[in-house]
Amino acid sequence: MISALPFPLTQARELVEPALRDAVDRLDPTSRQVAAYHLGWVEADGRPTSASGGKALRPALALLSARAAGAPADSGVPGAVAVELVHNFSLLHDDLMDGDVQRRHRATVWAVWGASTAILVGDAMLATAQQVLVDLEVPGGTPAARLLAAATQELIRGQVADLAFERRATVSVEECLAMAAGKTGALLGCSAAIGAVLNGASERLVTALTTYGDELGLAFQLVDDLLGIWGDGASTGKPVGADLRARKKSLPISFAVAAGGAASVELADWLATSGPDSDEEVSRATELVEAAGGREWAQAEAQRRLSAAERALGETDIEATIRDEFVELARFVTTGRAEP
Amino acid sequence: MISALPFPLTQARELVEPALRDAVDRLDPTSRQVAAYHLGWVEADGRPTSASGGKALRPALALLSARAAGAPADSGVPGAVAVELVHNFSLLHDDLMDGDVQRRHRATVWAVWGASTAILVGDAMLATAQQVLVDLEVPGGTPAARLLAAATQELIRGQVADLAFERRATVSVEECLAMAAGKTGALLGCSAAIGAVLNGASERLVTALTTYGDELGLAFQLVDDLLGIWGDGASTGKPVGADLRARKKSLPISFAVAAGGAASVELADWLATSGPDSDEEVSRATELVEAAGGREWAQAEAQRRLSAAERALGETDIEATIRDEFVELARFVTTGRAEP
Repeated sequence: MISALPFPLTQARELVEPALRDAVDRLDPTSRQVAAYHLGWVEADGRPTSASGGKALRPALALLSARAAGAPADSGVPGAVAVELVHNFSLLHDDLMDGDVQRRHRATVWAVWGASTAILVGDAMLATAQQVLVDLEVPGGTPAARLLAAATQELIRGQVADLAFERRATVSVEECLAMAAGKTGALLGCSAAIGAVLNGASERLVTALTTYGDELGLAFQLVDDLLGIWGDGASTGKPVGADLRARKKSLPISFAVAAGGAASVELADWLATSGPDSDEEVSRATELVEAAGGREWAQAEAQRRLSAAERALGETDIEATIRDEFVELARFVTTGRAEP
Repeated sequence: MISALPFPLTQARELVEPALRDAVDRLDPTSRQVAAYHLGWVEADGRPTSASGGKALRPALALLSARAAGAPADSGVPGAVAVELVHNFSLLHDDLMDGDVQRRHRATVWAVWGASTAILVGDAMLATAQQVLVDLEVPGGTPAARLLAAATQELIRGQVADLAFERRATVSVEECLAMAAGKTGALLGCSAAIGAVLNGASERLVTALTTYGDELGLAFQLVDDLLGIWGDGASTGKPVGADLRARKKSLPISFAVAAGGAASVELADWLATSGPDSDEEVSRATELVEAAGGREWAQAEAQRRLSAAERALGETDIEATIRDEFVELARFVTTGRAEP
């Protein structure tokens, strides 16, 4: 499906995986095996796997940001390991809370080992992420740990909001964007800056890189939400129409409900029903999101966020080839072909 | 029930609670309310409460350890806040994993708000604990964060072992002690040293204080396990016999099963049954633990651990009055009158 991976993703897999394995090796044997399965390194019974794991977007950003500060890519590795661990901590806990039984075409950890294991291995990954940074003996270690701690708080805050949305009838587009900024944007913002922070970069560069990552996060979430309605299940690993069936307040849906007009009202009425839904109903609801403008808005908003991300980079003196790699990476992960 | 609180516990409540409230105030409004309930500050609906909260043992140790390093008690406050947050993170997740519906005579967080809230508020507390330390602008901040990160890993490792024990028929006394060293000892060891670390104390002092806390943790766990069998439900908040009904591999039970002899064999046979248990059966099992030597051993072992804790202090040049406070505190929390 993914033909030509951008260089930063390839480089991240090569440079970061050994360090990530070292970090995971420090866990107790049970958690280590579970983490290795979740990260796509082994099957549930410990045999080698052909699974692909994640696409290492956050590690790639961390290495790029080290290079943006004029340092070698490998100086960003501890930051890359830390953000990838926080990302995977959140996946482990989110899959459990959302009751999702599949991720990346494989059974989720809680579905294989139960809720307690998913909780504990997530906890261990979060604790390890911080430990990797505070254990560093470089001056940038503590500032990087600060950045990560703040981003982790925002990530959790976003997840709290997401869960609260489930119990509400409607959610405004602004609330939905604020939630996504926490749940998706904060850690991408941190990833895009942490390599620079580790290398003592200027506040100006760190701010620009953080903005790039924050905006990329929103673009990414918009594309992910579009895939949750119109996406192709085979490539995303999500059944088509899943978000509508789940009555999820995703960005295109929230926009469509708030837009007003006949399609908007019909959509809101349907969302207030509780299923089970026929394929025809889901298909009709999908048309309504589009008719109410949700698809067009989300596509345009993703584009605007992507432009804002690129603009933030333009305000720095990052070397042109590195800036191009940031831009290419952002476009790649928001084309809708990459898995969320 | 508790008539005269030792000075360090009283001081900890006074000095630490305002800072702990500040840390909790930084959470999102939902998590803040849940954390305030869990910490005993408000009722579930937000009204003021007459609940007592925990006894602030870990904060008290953190302040004492600052004083042991010749610094004022309040220099240990960030460490006290951090260890108390990690302790409460673990309680939130453990109560959920263990299915416990009551703690300190009140409904547990997951029982009131559901599993997802308990997971997320626990996560937020863990992230905040690290944040409190890495955000400090003192030279001891990062070493303290390192100490906390390592202790958190041990704590999680202990909980992983505890859960694994549930799926096994028997557990050796050594395994059980190693589990308790992680689950209970590590954070007490960290608490008893973190104030000294924040103040740049010598490695020798830090090691001695950590040993004191580690040993106190084991003594504490032994007493807690004794209460789980013979304790008085009104003062402990645990129903008498709960550990036997739950077939928990607690320290006195593991010792009794491994001891050999008629009582040991009868106990093992009964533990292999799956209930429901009559009061007579639980009463008989309780007698068997005692007959097999589990009670006497646990009492003696707790005393040995307490002596080791005191001995560790004796190898330092801590001021005599402060050493006495450490000793008094350890004795107070292991008399069996204090809540675990």
